[in-house]
Amino acid sequence: MTDANPPGRGADVEGEPSVRARAPAGTLRPALTAVGALVDECRLRFDSGGLRAVAMDPATVAAVEVELDTGTFDDYAADGTAVGVDVTRLDEVLRMADADETVALALDPESWRLHVAADEWEYAMGLYDPESVREPPDTGELGFEHTADVVLPGETLDRVVTAAGMVADHLALGVDPEAGAFTAEADGDTDDVRFVVSESEATEFSAGRADSLFSLSYLECVERAVPSGTEVRFRLGEDAPLGVEYGIAGGGGRVEMFVSPRLQTV
Amino acid sequence: MTDANPPGRGADVEGEPSVRARAPAGTLRPALTAVGALVDECRLRFDSGGLRAVAMDPATVAAVEVELDTGTFDDYAADGTAVGVDVTRLDEVLRMADADETVALALDPESWRLHVAADEWEYAMGLYDPESVREPPDTGELGFEHTADVVLPGETLDRVVTAAGMVADHLALGVDPEAGAFTAEADGDTDDVRFVVSESEATEFSAGRADSLFSLSYLECVERAVPSGTEVRFRLGEDAPLGVEYGIAGGGGRVEMFVSPRLQTV
Amino acid sequence: MTDANPPGRGADVEGEPSVRARAPAGTLRPALTAVGALVDECRLRFDSGGLRAVAMDPATVAAVEVELDTGTFDDYAADGTAVGVDVTRLDEVLRMADADETVALALDPESWRLHVAADEWEYAMGLYDPESVREPPDTGELGFEHTADVVLPGETLDRVVTAAGMVADHLALGVDPEAGAFTAEADGDTDDVRFVVSESEATEFSAGRADSLFSLSYLECVERAVPSGTEVRFRLGEDAPLGVEYGIAGGGGRVEMFVSPRLQTV
Repeated sequence: MTDANPPGRGADVEGEPSVRARAPAGTLRPALTAVGALVDECRLRFDSGGLRAVAMDPATVAAVEVELDTGTFDDYAADGTAVGVDVTRLDEVLRMADADETVALALDPESWRLHVAADEWEYAMGLYDPESVREPPDTGELGFEHTADVVLPGETLDRVVTAAGMVADHLALGVDPEAGAFTAEADGDTDDVRFVVSESEATEFSAGRADSLFSLSYLECVERAVPSGTEVRFRLGEDAPLGVEYGIAGGGGRVEMFVSPRLQTV
Repeated sequence: MTDANPPGRGADVEGEPSVRARAPAGTLRPALTAVGALVDECRLRFDSGGLRAVAMDPATVAAVEVELDTGTFDDYAADGTAVGVDVTRLDEVLRMADADETVALALDPESWRLHVAADEWEYAMGLYDPESVREPPDTGELGFEHTADVVLPGETLDRVVTAAGMVADHLALGVDPEAGAFTAEADGDTDDVRFVVSESEATEFSAGRADSLFSLSYLECVERAVPSGTEVRFRLGEDAPLGVEYGIAGGGGRVEMFVSPRLQTV
Repeated sequence: MTDANPPGRGADVEGEPSVRARAPAGTLRPALTAVGALVDECRLRFDSGGLRAVAMDPATVAAVEVELDTGTFDDYAADGTAVGVDVTRLDEVLRMADADETVALALDPESWRLHVAADEWEYAMGLYDPESVREPPDTGELGFEHTADVVLPGETLDRVVTAAGMVADHLALGVDPEAGAFTAEADGDTDDVRFVVSESEATEFSAGRADSLFSLSYLECVERAVPSGTEVRFRLGEDAPLGVEYGIAGGGGRVEMFVSPRLQTV
């Protein structure tokens, strides 16, 4: 829905805003939570097709890519401006609103601040130069070779990561096509733990053999990003990066995360 | 209701108690919480008309005055004795009872201890010499010049204080008579936040122009004192102290807090 | 119920398991919680009659004895093997399952690991040599002289311990036969607190005079062990150890704890 003359207060900017967007706070927040799981600052791009953010953690082990289509906004007008933003802070600002309360974003190019306004309040947030924020290469061009593609409840990741944390700082994720199962295994000095999630519990299960080892701390970041009750697509390969993909904003947005594998030490 | 011969156990004192009072724990606690928000020790006065406490924080920036009328007690007999008390400890003792459980207070002048008794337990609390506890001047005589008087839900203070804490350690509260609005504004180094609560959301709104700057830490103390679901009267002026007033004990008690303004740095 | 051919996955051991047992996680956990309240490691004995653990805290002030009869297991086969186990870790592993989810235990004598398996996961836990874990003497032979025997809700202990912690690091527990009451009293430097729980609130009350002083920290350990909603039998004497006894696993298991008294300092 586009609302050219929104009722109530809008964002009160000094210059002519180069970006104007309105959406429920609960639509925007999962996008920022996902980015904030890996980085403190990111480049936020207000493209004509929607809002887009990509980020890579400082150790360049994990990357995240987030998109919110214009259709998820009540109102959206932008021309491709990119800004550098403190994602944790922006997430915190959006928490000031209820999930279903509409917030208006307006970028003031004069003061280089992002104005976030709800019914009763307005927050003006200082921005960074987008060029000063490191951005990953386009993840679509990385050409990961995935052999397996499994859709599971996000809670599975939560349970696997918690269990692995009891014994080790790494976790092997894989797919066993013969057993028709998604597997997770952590081997510690004295204790081991192994999960076997059968094909019947998966919403989708297109499986070739896959087996890769990951640092647990990065999988914990991914786990924290996934909203509860969300179905997650896991893309896996042999010693290949993990791809984690899920929908946000009622399907009008997407989060894709990648985690590089560790060397297998056998 | 006065119950001269209460059933069950009363407070078991050695000498003849100079104070006897009985009330539900939940009636007494908000009074102590309000005082405890500013000081650790206070002077508690058992007057013939009820219980009264006044206190000022060590930096003399904020003061609190609390009254519980005799009608809020199931039973009350006192002659004006004042005691010095550890308010945090007394609040903790009252938490041992359920909110609707009656507790009996009895002051033993021999051992100089306050006996707090519920159905199953009795706690004897050592007291201080009331003269050793500093008391503020009578706040009624301070003659603050308030220009605005606004009644709002206590939650408004909570939201305003939380938001201001994201950007600064101070907060300007004011009233804009033309806009018919209560305003709160915090200006930080890079970010600003501003609340505008319109007259229509206020239960009462008698507004002249008002604008004063306060240290956030003192407003946080005030915010912690206000029980949830309580309407609060804010009295404001131009560079004047903030007055915060609300009822407790079903209207049979009152809390009044004052916070001195900071110098405006423009 | 014995289920010789359990459906679903069992524990996957290398050698022929010397112990096999299956029970809901919620049946096993209170037994481990009780032992874990006093020690980190204990000797777990899989006798033909059931699972048994005894432990004494390092300062030899408190002891715990736990039994789970074979009838509390869905399936049980053992020959008296004893293992040394990290109880806190085993408790944590069982938390990976829902309370009503069945877990299978299998002891692999080759790798000397305990395999814990639920529907989706299996955890292999390294064990200690049972001879390396100190065990208390048989508590049944200690011959404590108890004069009073009182059954009360476990919550009573919780409230008494919390209140005592406000004033002192010790707590006197006793029974007053004339008053028909269980008493708890803590005397601090300035404050005292006293509980009087009358006979009418006890499920059982067979009382001679009893009065003993205990270190609060040990009573806190006992309090943490008791599941909420559990009736507890307190056995008391004059300067005698405290016996605390309660049922677990729907009556098919028992926990008994003992705490030695402190010297009364009058």
